[in-house]
Formats: sequence, structure tokens, C-alpha cells
Amino acid sequence: MIKHSEININTFKRCQWIDITPQIMHIVSETNIKNGFCIAASLHTTAGITINENADPDVERDFFNILENLVPKLNSYYHTEGNSDSHAKASLVGFSTYIPIKNGKIILGTWQSVYFCEFDGPRNRKISLTILGEN
Amino acid sequence: MIKHSEININTFKRCQWIDITPQIMHIVSETNIKNGFCIAASLHTTAGITINENADPDVERDFFNILENLVPKLNSYYHTEGNSDSHAKASLVGFSTYIPIKNGKIILGTWQSVYFCEFDGPRNRKISLTILGEN
Amino acid sequence: MIKHSEININTFKRCQWIDITPQIMHIVSETNIKNGFCIAASLHTTAGITINENADPDVERDFFNILENLVPKLNSYYHTEGNSDSHAKASLVGFSTYIPIKNGKIILGTWQSVYFCEFDGPRNRKISLTILGEN
Repeated sequence: MIKHSEININTFKRCQWIDITPQIMHIVSETNIKNGFCIAASLHTTAGITINENADPDVERDFFNILENLVPKLNSYYHTEGNSDSHAKASLVGFSTYIPIKNGKIILGTWQSVYFCEFDGPRNRKISLTILGEN
Repeated sequence: MIKHSEININTFKRCQWIDITPQIMHIVSETNIKNGFCIAASLHTTAGITINENADPDVERDFFNILENLVPKLNSYYHTEGNSDSHAKASLVGFSTYIPIKNGKIILGTWQSVYFCEFDGPRNRKISLTILGEN
Repeated sequence: MIKHSEININTFKRCQWIDITPQIMHIVSETNIKNGFCIAASLHTTAGITINENADPDVERDFFNILENLVPKLNSYYHTEGNSDSHAKASLVGFSTYIPIKNGKIILGTWQSVYFCEFDGPRNRKISLTILGEN
């Protein structure tokens, strides 16, 4: 059984991550799939998806400072939209992530959440969610 | 239903990306799978796969300049083949990407294409494509 | 058919990679799945999974030096556990990787192995393995 779904979110800063684990859990539970996995994928080119710590908000602060240090927003890029850094950051972080489903629940490590990573907000964004498995 | 296929390409520069979306669309349509997903994976260690913008070629130029800035090709690495930067760039960008299939068509965002990322060309390269789903 | 399994490993340095290809091959062969794929996922936030060269150990040395250069372990991060670099490195490398299965064997390129990437060891770590396919 394969089900497709979509998560819509609004970001409110240029660079931030948003925990989409609750939405994923909700959609997975509605499918009634007990054993399988799901894949969450960003449908954009300046926003990615990653997994990271859900406990201390300073991890997010450090993460985006580190990325800004690595790939600064500059005016000297060839692409004239002012977001070449965002395109590169998204490819470095990646556009999709995979989560196993067991006994109807998604399997994440104790400290793991799934984060949508905005690198060129604020914007309205879409995440595709594919859930595959058996009842 | 699970089908495996392979895409063969020749790269012609040391570092470049090549849009493999047309090949993926063609192979997916030949499987007759209407609902599912596919995964494209690089079978190399100095070439990865990513998603990025398909409109302005300057995004590619900036992307590879940014990566070259981050991980320069140097002679001072321990690995003596002169491509330690390529190995690192490939791991940073990643080796596979995931694309949903709905109504027989791959689902990508408006500006998204799937790119094979060559970091140590020119070479002949192979991409594995797995398509899973139902008719 | 979908099977979940887990790989447990002990790392012995702060930063290192460990080739988990033999464990993956063993678990895949025990499932009797002949055609399909598997996904290996790190259940942590300071350790990722990648693919890279299995021939010259200097590739690992260069890889971790390059990452340390990009994201140094510093005391000046906001997150006070001393491992903000580890969180960022894991998100850059990614948390999961995908491997096709054909004729009962995993498909990797000639030089490819699957590596668990420890960025904050030594620790006991868990990798989730999902194998999907048909006999």
C-alpha cells in the first residue's frame, strides 16, 4: 500500500528549521499502515529536510550560524536572485529523509526530530510525504 | 512491483552537474507504474546526486564555486589520487535522491530537476534507478 | 515484504567512520529478499551515514580533516554540550542511505562501502535497517 500526502507550512524567517514530526506522525496514523516507512521530501530548491536534536533550541542557532559561516549570503554570486547560498545550503543538507514505521509508529532515535530547513524564507512551502507499507 | 534500471552518462568536465530528469521520466513511464516512487543512486564515490534549480545556469556555476571554496582541490591530502576533495564533496551532497510517482508521473517542485553531480570527471558514470509501486 | 532490523556498533574515537557493509549484506541475505532495496538510517543526531571509498584508508583521514576544517569543534557555540560541530556534521553528511537489492545481493559500485559516521564518540550506536522487496 502506497499513500501520498502533502504538508503545507509557512516559514517566518530567512533561515530556520521547523519540526514537522507531529504532522508526519498524524498523517502516518491516518493511513493505518502498521509496518513500512515514509519519506518526506521538500518540493523546493532553497529549502531542505534534515533530522536533528529536538531538545535544546541552541542546536538550531548553532546549526544556522555554522551554515551561514560556510556559505555566506553574498552579492557577488552569478545568480542574481540573491539566494545562491540558499540553493547550496539546501543541496548540502539534502531534500528528503527516510523514517521507518513499526507497529503503526514512526521510528526515530530518542533525540531525533524531522526538520524542514528554510534557507530563503519567509515563504509558503510544500513537503511531499510518501507512506509505504502493510496494515 | 519493483524494477531496477540503470542510466549511463559521460561527463565532460571535472566538476559539473547533469540534469537526469528526462531519463528518469522516460524509464518511469516505461515501467507503467502509476503510483509509487523511484530512487536514483550514484554508483561512484566521487560523484553524487542532488536536486536543484533547472532555470538559471548560474545556479550551477555558483554551486560548484561554493563547493570548491569549501573543499579545495589540494595536493596536501593524504590520499594520493588527487581527488580527496571529490570524495568529500560527494558525501556532502549525497549519493541518492528520492522522487514520488503519482498518476504515472514523477512529482517534483516547479523549479526542481534531479542532477548527477560529477566531482572528478570527465568519466563514464552509472546511476542505479529503482522504481517501486503499483499499476 | 518489509523487514526491520537493527545494527549495534561501538565507536572508539570522537570522529571516525565504520564500514557497515558486511552487516548489511548479512541481514539482507537472512531475509531471503531477492529483489528490492534497503535503507540504513542512523538513530542519532551526532552520527550520520554515508557511502564512500573502501580501498584506501587515507580517504577517511582526509574526509574527517576536511569536515573538521569546515566545522571545527569550538567552545564558542551556544549549545553547551561541546558537540554543536557534531550535530552540523551529521546533518551535512545525512542520516540515511539507500541500497538496491538484485538477485539477493546489494548493489554497490566497485569502490563503494556504506559507512556509519561517528562525530561525537566513543559511544554505543544503533542503525535501523529496513529491507523491502520480494522473494
